[in-house]
Amino acid sequence: MKACVIGDGGWGTALAMTLASNGHDVTVWGPFEENLRAVREKRENVTFLPGVPVPPEIRWTSSPGEAAAEAGLVLVVVPSRYYRDVILRFRECLPPGSLVVSATKGLDEETYSRMTRVAAELLDGRFVAALSGPTHAEEVARGYPAAAVVAGADHAAVGAIRDAFMNRRFRLYTSEDAAGVEYGGALKNVIALAAGINDGMELGDSAKAALMTRGLVEIARLGEALGARRETFGGLSGMGDLIVTCTSRHSRNRAVGERLGRGEKLSEVMGAMKMVAEGVWTCGAAVSLARSQGIEMPVTEEVRRIVHEGKDPRRAMEDLMGREARNE
Amino acid sequence: MKACVIGDGGWGTALAMTLASNGHDVTVWGPFEENLRAVREKRENVTFLPGVPVPPEIRWTSSPGEAAAEAGLVLVVVPSRYYRDVILRFRECLPPGSLVVSATKGLDEETYSRMTRVAAELLDGRFVAALSGPTHAEEVARGYPAAAVVAGADHAAVGAIRDAFMNRRFRLYTSEDAAGVEYGGALKNVIALAAGINDGMELGDSAKAALMTRGLVEIARLGEALGARRETFGGLSGMGDLIVTCTSRHSRNRAVGERLGRGEKLSEVMGAMKMVAEGVWTCGAAVSLARSQGIEMPVTEEVRRIVHEGKDPRRAMEDLMGREARNE
Repeated sequence: MKACVIGDGGWGTALAMTLASNGHDVTVWGPFEENLRAVREKRENVTFLPGVPVPPEIRWTSSPGEAAAEAGLVLVVVPSRYYRDVILRFRECLPPGSLVVSATKGLDEETYSRMTRVAAELLDGRFVAALSGPTHAEEVARGYPAAAVVAGADHAAVGAIRDAFMNRRFRLYTSEDAAGVEYGGALKNVIALAAGINDGMELGDSAKAALMTRGLVEIARLGEALGARRETFGGLSGMGDLIVTCTSRHSRNRAVGERLGRGEKLSEVMGAMKMVAEGVWTCGAAVSLARSQGIEMPVTEEVRRIVHEGKDPRRAMEDLMGREARNE
Repeated sequence: MKACVIGDGGWGTALAMTLASNGHDVTVWGPFEENLRAVREKRENVTFLPGVPVPPEIRWTSSPGEAAAEAGLVLVVVPSRYYRDVILRFRECLPPGSLVVSATKGLDEETYSRMTRVAAELLDGRFVAALSGPTHAEEVARGYPAAAVVAGADHAAVGAIRDAFMNRRFRLYTSEDAAGVEYGGALKNVIALAAGINDGMELGDSAKAALMTRGLVEIARLGEALGARRETFGGLSGMGDLIVTCTSRHSRNRAVGERLGRGEKLSEVMGAMKMVAEGVWTCGAAVSLARSQGIEMPVTEEVRRIVHEGKDPRRAMEDLMGREARNE
């Protein structure tokens, strides 16, 4: 099958390699010809996935028409803030019967919608599945074992997408709950900030595990109010991804939290960083969504206060610990 | 209130210190006069919680009668294999109206019963609550923030126990689901072995997060069949404790798994260890329970084969990854 991967970042590259190793004919689209040229020449995505050799069969192009031509499978994996623009560039050239799957984690900046909703809307109601899970791009690209979920209401399409990606090193589960899969993947970044703040304050493993657990409970509560299934948050795209993000040294969200926990202000942290940590923006969106749904999210609220109001993390932690006793 | 802590290990000592700092009059019982004498003299539990000063108000005794006299709260926190014998020694001397709470994680060796069931049975049906959560004894003893759960069907007793332990650094949630709290605490050790095996094989963070997530799903499945509530496994005593145990360097179960993952056999690993890793025994119990309930536990089954049948961990991981695709 011909496959089109929209997005030449680390995760797009890893998934393109997975599809290629399963025998599919893969073309990756990226916005900058310069990066694509470098990948073609060096057989390595030096900017976004350094150190991993990329197989020569994969093609790299900045032309949407070329990338999407005759594609049976289309994978969208671009940062959430460029998502709308990129989808619009592909709108006219996606083959009608192609399977579309989105692996972007995040919420739409304006509407707080999840990504498959944004894509479906821009693509005139076409079915778009979600792919998410606890996966380091580098590990998947190097063929380390990993597992993820493909989710959506169209059983046949979800099953076909799973079959395209699955092999003996990359295990895929199916789910009908795209909402749960996407809210888990987006909102867990807020809890990763909390876990990082805990690390920066050197509060220990007990407090960190408690923050992660209670954090996931409140994310699931919000997700359920927004139409997701609670169990999905206990799955690979929820708890699994939360674990990887909160314990990995490579997580940007955890790292930003660590610096805030050491007492730096957001402006200092962001000034030194090239890339944005998604959770910084998502904590505001989560609080807005929670308020509109009448949901309590104490961990998320305190993260937002630390990040956006400069609240002292020690004070925030005291306020969390001092809440009234309650049922779990 | 007078409080009796049955068990002078690390966790017993930390919880005794918590009770003492809340103003209770605490006596700790331990089986060996020699260790108790050392604690009294050095004001430190050198064997089980080295490096943490113990407050002088706490009394230490090897006499059950002395420890239990006039106790309003009795905390049992001894290793599961000595649990029955110790409870029998206290049977005659526990004050009739005292609150009893068990913080031992494990299952009875003969019956696979959870600990509060064993205690209640030996104490003629008296109510026994369960206390569990993601807590390092040393962190709690040093006053780092932590959270745990007190569970049981008797609301008033559970609330009173929570009030005795809770303070601004140790946050306690209540729950009615003692079964979920206890099965989570006992069975998570099997998944810690799996996580350790993954570490020893250097399979990476993606695979580890997937093992932890799918492991918790199957534990919850078994727990539900045994009368627990599924949500409890997503709480502090389930997911929270799993995270601490699978990611901590100090976890014995994880460490045993790591050596098995590097290719050592159980006999070699155990020969070098003074203490038993509970998961080694629990994986057999879990498989027996799962079979009697008709529950699938693929991660637990593979752990048992590696531990008790000497199966090659690489083969076990391939068998896990090669299972038929399914719904999450």
